[in-house]
Amino acid sequence: MLNKNLYAVILAGGSGTRFWPLSRKSRPKQFLSLEGRQSLLKQTLQRISKKVPGQQILIVTNKDYSAPIIQQARVFKIPKKNILLEPSGKNTAPAICWVANEIYHRNQTAVMAVLPSDHLILNQQAFFKHWQRGVRLAQDGHLVTLGIVPTHPETGYGYLKTRRIRIKGKMVWQVERFTEKPILSKARQFLRSKRYFWNSGMFFWRCEVILAEFQKYLPKVYRLFQGRSDLSSLRKIWPKLPSISVDYGILEKAKDVVTIPAVDMGWSDLGSWASLYEALPKDQRGNIFQGDVVDYDSHGTLVFGDRRLITTVGLQDLIVVDTDDALLVCHRDHSQRIKDVVERLKSQKRKEH
Amino acid sequence: MLNKNLYAVILAGGSGTRFWPLSRKSRPKQFLSLEGRQSLLKQTLQRISKKVPGQQILIVTNKDYSAPIIQQARVFKIPKKNILLEPSGKNTAPAICWVANEIYHRNQTAVMAVLPSDHLILNQQAFFKHWQRGVRLAQDGHLVTLGIVPTHPETGYGYLKTRRIRIKGKMVWQVERFTEKPILSKARQFLRSKRYFWNSGMFFWRCEVILAEFQKYLPKVYRLFQGRSDLSSLRKIWPKLPSISVDYGILEKAKDVVTIPAVDMGWSDLGSWASLYEALPKDQRGNIFQGDVVDYDSHGTLVFGDRRLITTVGLQDLIVVDTDDALLVCHRDHSQRIKDVVERLKSQKRKEH
Repeated sequence: MLNKNLYAVILAGGSGTRFWPLSRKSRPKQFLSLEGRQSLLKQTLQRISKKVPGQQILIVTNKDYSAPIIQQARVFKIPKKNILLEPSGKNTAPAICWVANEIYHRNQTAVMAVLPSDHLILNQQAFFKHWQRGVRLAQDGHLVTLGIVPTHPETGYGYLKTRRIRIKGKMVWQVERFTEKPILSKARQFLRSKRYFWNSGMFFWRCEVILAEFQKYLPKVYRLFQGRSDLSSLRKIWPKLPSISVDYGILEKAKDVVTIPAVDMGWSDLGSWASLYEALPKDQRGNIFQGDVVDYDSHGTLVFGDRRLITTVGLQDLIVVDTDDALLVCHRDHSQRIKDVVERLKSQKRKEH
Repeated sequence: MLNKNLYAVILAGGSGTRFWPLSRKSRPKQFLSLEGRQSLLKQTLQRISKKVPGQQILIVTNKDYSAPIIQQARVFKIPKKNILLEPSGKNTAPAICWVANEIYHRNQTAVMAVLPSDHLILNQQAFFKHWQRGVRLAQDGHLVTLGIVPTHPETGYGYLKTRRIRIKGKMVWQVERFTEKPILSKARQFLRSKRYFWNSGMFFWRCEVILAEFQKYLPKVYRLFQGRSDLSSLRKIWPKLPSISVDYGILEKAKDVVTIPAVDMGWSDLGSWASLYEALPKDQRGNIFQGDVVDYDSHGTLVFGDRRLITTVGLQDLIVVDTDDALLVCHRDHSQRIKDVVERLKSQKRKEH
């Protein structure tokens, strides 16, 4: 049975270029088929549409991506009025305030699930188990975050510091603090303490509850979205909005944030080629080959090809990505530097970014 | 003053694919611009034409390469009758017997210099110093080889074992034995002994002298070429010729072979991408970049690009070669395996070889 009160909000406005040269300004990560045959956005919509009808799925994205989004929305019977086009990126808080307001005006008892459009979730069954708990806790009035149980001292993620408390006779992890990306020694400490979780950016809450928090902690944002939704008024308020994340603007300050620890859902935020490598299944030498690849004696290597023959010989821990107009060959330990590459291309006004 | 008796023979029939994907069956190494702007063949002709007029330069090549060879020959005023087209590759002995016979019929006192078309020689001055000694020793009736003083225990080359002898009051290195590619321990021993030189495949001798050696050691080859040079008779004798090198068929057996040790001429046989890497000047991190390359923190890496942007990040000792229809990424220590790659492509009937 589908829940009439449950709305899903897909955040699809990201413009990351960490998967360059596959990702480009005009084709960010959510539109790429990084593994399997479908884009991450389509995978997300496929997953969600099993629990939420198209009428109750909303997508917030940048106006530049409206064409591919509208196309996907049609496939999943998501009405056009459910696509909210941001004039420019302002991080997650304005987007969430806008969409919460929009849903609240349709259904005042609605619960909304907030989901990134560009994460990998390999185990759907585990995901939906956490999902159901999330919805229940949200219905009870909590702000719920999905926390990922850390498997290694990752320095690229924010962490949720938690403590165990009892709510209505059930043990729950309450969030004490949001922590920005830590240094390695801190991350190791977090891992040992067992009280820290990775912040997945997936949330569940009642629209009424989150709007009350906006009114309290980001009153300006709250006020700007009151009663407005037509395009011309949106253009007027947009420049006045701060660029701020919901984590920093609301959740860090809110009193009643809980987390659902998820350990088993095969999650990855796919934040870099290296994290895609971690997430995907490998052959017995630790290689992942996509495309027309002929290999001799390589190990730990990810090759993403397209049309041409790619021959790899004796490689160790490399990332090779071949596209029509650009080729990347990068050591896996250096994949965070791809941002710098794209910045340099941008500053040189080269078309390849 | 140009020497009326001196002929240069360029061997340009090689079909190697060790520079795949740049070299192909239809475009072997001698036609590539591996460094600088000109093909190795053109560089060879430019060098030689300073000492030998076009009328006295002969080129032996495979009939498949006649078009590019004829084009180059025109540039250097080499008459068409000086281009000998082999119906198929039969190694160096038949080619040399054929061309020696051809030259002998034009000039019975001729000296011929035999030169590969696909070697790199960076120091021309040093080369011509050895060249002049070679010509003098050849005029005196010796079979002369140009030996390269080894700089490291190379296992990819044949070696000349020599001893010092006195000829007409002058000390000369006489070749005692030709040695096939040695194993590493042997190569180290050769390097220490100071009596071994790399076999460069460059030779000087009088046509009369080498023909007498053919008559003695490869009488069948000698006989087949006697008095014949028209195309139809060539087609008739060609299948009967053995495929054998002049080193193995003649020089190993001949009594009077001397060598000129060359240490300083910046020679490389360019037998692999790794040896090209060794031969070319590098930047301060040991990289060689050709094409549109943007690099971050790579070391010891050779990148050969063409049209597309190539971005390299954190690489160590790699070879990256990018062409329209094939990409190679290979560890420098594995560049000998490229032969296997091409063999596999051939056996799979793929067009990329």
